[in-house]
Amino acid sequence: MIDSPKTLRAIGELLAWLPEPSQASRQAAQARQKELTKPPGSLGRLEEIAAFIAAWQEKPQPVLNRPLVAVFASSHGVAKKNVSAYPASVTRAMVDNFAAGGAAINQICKVNGLGLMVSNLALDIPSKDITEEPALEEADAAASFAYGMEAISGGVDLLCLGEMGIGNTTVAAAIYHALYGGAAADWVGYGTGVDRQGYERKTAAVAAAVARHKDCLADPLEMMRCLGGRDIAAMAGAIIAARLERVPVVLDGYVVCAAAAILHALNSAALDHCLAGHISAEGAHKEVLRRLGKQPLLDLGMRLGEGSGAALAFGIIKAAIMCHSGMATFAEAKVAGRREI
Amino acid sequence: MIDSPKTLRAIGELLAWLPEPSQASRQAAQARQKELTKPPGSLGRLEEIAAFIAAWQEKPQPVLNRPLVAVFASSHGVAKKNVSAYPASVTRAMVDNFAAGGAAINQICKVNGLGLMVSNLALDIPSKDITEEPALEEADAAASFAYGMEAISGGVDLLCLGEMGIGNTTVAAAIYHALYGGAAADWVGYGTGVDRQGYERKTAAVAAAVARHKDCLADPLEMMRCLGGRDIAAMAGAIIAARLERVPVVLDGYVVCAAAAILHALNSAALDHCLAGHISAEGAHKEVLRRLGKQPLLDLGMRLGEGSGAALAFGIIKAAIMCHSGMATFAEAKVAGRREI
Repeated sequence: MIDSPKTLRAIGELLAWLPEPSQASRQAAQARQKELTKPPGSLGRLEEIAAFIAAWQEKPQPVLNRPLVAVFASSHGVAKKNVSAYPASVTRAMVDNFAAGGAAINQICKVNGLGLMVSNLALDIPSKDITEEPALEEADAAASFAYGMEAISGGVDLLCLGEMGIGNTTVAAAIYHALYGGAAADWVGYGTGVDRQGYERKTAAVAAAVARHKDCLADPLEMMRCLGGRDIAAMAGAIIAARLERVPVVLDGYVVCAAAAILHALNSAALDHCLAGHISAEGAHKEVLRRLGKQPLLDLGMRLGEGSGAALAFGIIKAAIMCHSGMATFAEAKVAGRREI
Repeated sequence: MIDSPKTLRAIGELLAWLPEPSQASRQAAQARQKELTKPPGSLGRLEEIAAFIAAWQEKPQPVLNRPLVAVFASSHGVAKKNVSAYPASVTRAMVDNFAAGGAAINQICKVNGLGLMVSNLALDIPSKDITEEPALEEADAAASFAYGMEAISGGVDLLCLGEMGIGNTTVAAAIYHALYGGAAADWVGYGTGVDRQGYERKTAAVAAAVARHKDCLADPLEMMRCLGGRDIAAMAGAIIAARLERVPVVLDGYVVCAAAAILHALNSAALDHCLAGHISAEGAHKEVLRRLGKQPLLDLGMRLGEGSGAALAFGIIKAAIMCHSGMATFAEAKVAGRREI
């Protein structure tokens, strides 16, 4: 495992050299796909996924023995601006619900045979209100990033990312507004379901936060420190740790992609090992995915977070890998191949 | 179980009275969704699916104890017009491959915990070449339909439909052309991957078949007899049997929807118990789904058949039902609900 970075500068250095996928494994997987008992290309994206996972795992026949959903929970100071339809106490209550097995993500993990790890990132110490102060001190941001890097420890071979944190769609919107410009309202959604007044408060908070930190936004990592939170920093760390170990990542929705967008701004190749699990119904997620160059696997109108979209998409990925490794070849099954007529 | 119809007229009578979903169960399911520990509506289509299955199963908490993929295989006389990239012998070889567990559908069933039943519909006796003669005698068509009705026997509580039959995308295109007009080429796709010459032969066969039977196309069941095949008739029977027993159905792609389209032409409410598993990359499937009023669950560029798209979509449905029944309520988990601020 890589040494944990203790400063933002050290994090930036991590991104300077990122491993590439194995073209040999990709080509071997593609060659196998042509031999399987189906017309070439007829499994569509499932064939692409198999080649993608093969390339990143450096295995012509990839495996999913320890797929994990890592959910990062943290508290956001901006929640006190009443930007959510739920009180900030819901973050901890939902973490307890995850532990008791009662949340949506628990059920989806059960359906798809996924492990679930929920990380509490100092829930009692909210990040600062981004409309007033930087969310985190540098040491906190770096520590959260380093903490997130542990998500792939223990032999995880595919990582789905998720988050929980009342206020974090506001934080994500601020990051998108800072990264991509436009008006604050272009990036703000209804989150947990705020009413019109809540939406106005949320948009005002996003605009205020970006204005407040306008001098700190040139460096994406400094932007992450000022506008983000522990969940965002930890997810960025998890994505990079996965890349360094060539573990494929499935991104979830609107908030997870804010962490990904920070990395993408630092290095446009930083997300090459990531699949977009789904397109969220939240805010401008569609536009975010377009900017990240990711085509989502699912489009089901979901906007829950918790990694639910990534975990659901994992079912597709698992099927892709099972088809790749479990199907008979034309020769094995004695099925006649294509003919010229 | 309903008496098996022995004539097309008896089949038509079956469609005159079709059971409706239970509004009480739908409303109970919707009420429960509002109590689960997530913002209302945040699971998107998963919430709609839960209410849909509840309504059809007449159970506020629906169950998926015996979900089945029923694959109907038959031989098509039109295959001798060289409309496929594979020889007609592949139909039987693939049926053997299903039995041996080597096909894509076997792997997807394994991933999603689905039963698989493959029905051989007189593989040694191809339907007639539809460019020259009606595909089936009336007795054959009715017998295939009745055979298909058995798909839900034994307590099946959700049915995914699939098919295998070299030549059957030509048959499906002929049905769409007859039902929906336009030019033959509007409805023809590349099937197993024919080359340009094969595509021209296929389009010519579709045009010839519809011209040949132009006097028999006013009645959709007569159209099914003349342009279809045993697989199409059996799938139509399976869809109607499921409706009569209030078993929800997941349609697969281009060929399965041809059977569904016949029923839809007879009674526009006949598919109300059906979900579209996916949008196929084959031919005009997108336009077919639009005409059937179905929004697909998945869009992954697949065009394999075998029920693969339906079986893959079943993973989404299973997750929807597991969330519905397995999640804690706000009260159970002691999570604060929405507030007015």
